Amino acid sequence: MSDLRRPRVGHIEFLNCMPIYWGLMRSGALIDVELTRDTPVALNDALVAGELDIAPISLVEYLRHADDLVLLPDVAVGSDGPVLSVNIVHPRPLSDMDGGRVALGSSSRTGVLLAQMLISERLGVDVEYVRTEPDVPRMLRNADAAVVIGDVALRAKYEAPKQGLTVTDLGTAWRDWTGLPMVFAVWAVRREYAERHPGVVKDVHQAFTRSLALCRDELDEAAAAASRWEPFDAATLAGYFRALDFSLGERQLTGLRAFAAKAAERGEVPPLPADGPLLFQP
Amino acid sequence: MSDLRRPRVGHIEFLNCMPIYWGLMRSGALIDVELTRDTPVALNDALVAGELDIAPISLVEYLRHADDLVLLPDVAVGSDGPVLSVNIVHPRPLSDMDGGRVALGSSSRTGVLLAQMLISERLGVDVEYVRTEPDVPRMLRNADAAVVIGDVALRAKYEAPKQGLTVTDLGTAWRDWTGLPMVFAVWAVRREYAERHPGVVKDVHQAFTRSLALCRDELDEAAAAASRWEPFDAATLAGYFRALDFSLGERQLTGLRAFAAKAAERGEVPPLPADGPLLFQP
Repeated sequence: MSDLRRPRVGHIEFLNCMPIYWGLMRSGALIDVELTRDTPVALNDALVAGELDIAPISLVEYLRHADDLVLLPDVAVGSDGPVLSVNIVHPRPLSDMDGGRVALGSSSRTGVLLAQMLISERLGVDVEYVRTEPDVPRMLRNADAAVVIGDVALRAKYEAPKQGLTVTDLGTAWRDWTGLPMVFAVWAVRREYAERHPGVVKDVHQAFTRSLALCRDELDEAAAAASRWEPFDAATLAGYFRALDFSLGERQLTGLRAFAAKAAERGEVPPLPADGPLLFQP
Repeated sequence: MSDLRRPRVGHIEFLNCMPIYWGLMRSGALIDVELTRDTPVALNDALVAGELDIAPISLVEYLRHADDLVLLPDVAVGSDGPVLSVNIVHPRPLSDMDGGRVALGSSSRTGVLLAQMLISERLGVDVEYVRTEPDVPRMLRNADAAVVIGDVALRAKYEAPKQGLTVTDLGTAWRDWTGLPMVFAVWAVRREYAERHPGVVKDVHQAFTRSLALCRDELDEAAAAASRWEPFDAATLAGYFRALDFSLGERQLTGLRAFAAKAAERGEVPPLPADGPLLFQP
């Protein structure tokens, strides 16, 4: 018996977060949260506006609002090498694009910034950037390369090579550049919510870590269930889920800090404090 | 691998549908549906408008749109006796109300019609009806009785007697009157969806029946989990869930037809065909 309300928790509807949903569902944890399923951009906005208490947020948006947020340890969406679903699709080599134009998919925050870092800092190529709807054929009609994420990017990974296009995996590119894993999204709690309801946040955090453990055990089952409704077969989905790194430990935090430092140098985000990011202590 | 989209399924956020949600979650079935959680009135409208494929719908709204809908057998929300959460709250005996006024809670469709049937046909009492927000103290400031459903009604069941108010349970009243169970809400599929996707509807139907079986086995666990967030203790919730009749078999269909006939006599709904209601054949 309680006058507490359930924590308002966000969930990304993309395939890459399906393993987390699977585990939340199978463990029975959904009864303890008021779950809102939406796109990453909508969830980012809702968390920042205080309409959600706990939600996944793209790394760039987290860095922009780090003062108001506390990170949940152990859970993230990233990769330590190929991520398969954060891609640059391009007909000619990226190094030949000088003076050209790159279309940035509007559904991405962190992926498009990573692409810009790689193109300008690592490849030393100077291009113009335009923001567009994430539709690869339309993007390539008006640009030399298209940066896309999520299901659109995963489809491009398998289909673009048949059309003579090259797919540059941004998880691989970041690892080759820095030797580190890339973190694309983190789970954050509004700071004042974490201070007022540490016990609830602890329970939600435990639900996520249990969910991930359960999903690792049932990954093929989860992939088979998802393939009923998705344009990918069960084996492709299982391979995708295994490529993703859902952890946020010391190695991932080192990758996160390296990205944060580069993003701050570019003036895209405020610098992270020396002892940042602020982590929830479960 | 598929180009089918998940069926759009509605779920009532009231406590009375929590056992169904519990089972859907515990069985893993949520991965196969696009679930929209909302109030009964919002779900009624969305199903009728074709924004949902399968949803719970109040019995009265189903009867108004029976030509466009097919009922799922074996699942409903009703009671074969006390329902606890569909109530008339009144300070004086209902039979003394002649010439008085009854406030009908705006969140109810079937409950308020049942109350009107009982007051005018069974008790032979003539009153004026007004539609208002479902707030018992405010309703009773301007009326002699208040008809409420759901969590508000369940709370009134336990609290109103302490304030000297009488609570008339409409499930009990209907059973005393007709000897039959009352069905307050049914699950319906849009007819054209059932014709185009019988296999998907069969799977969703099976998910609901499995969900109910699972919840019957884990009823105390479900009640304990819900009591964390609700203003009722686990024992009260378990008693409530046990009072509800989630089945829709021959006996419940007989009750449904008796209500439909009375509602049609009052001109509130079109008559049900002699062989109605149309049931989905799993």
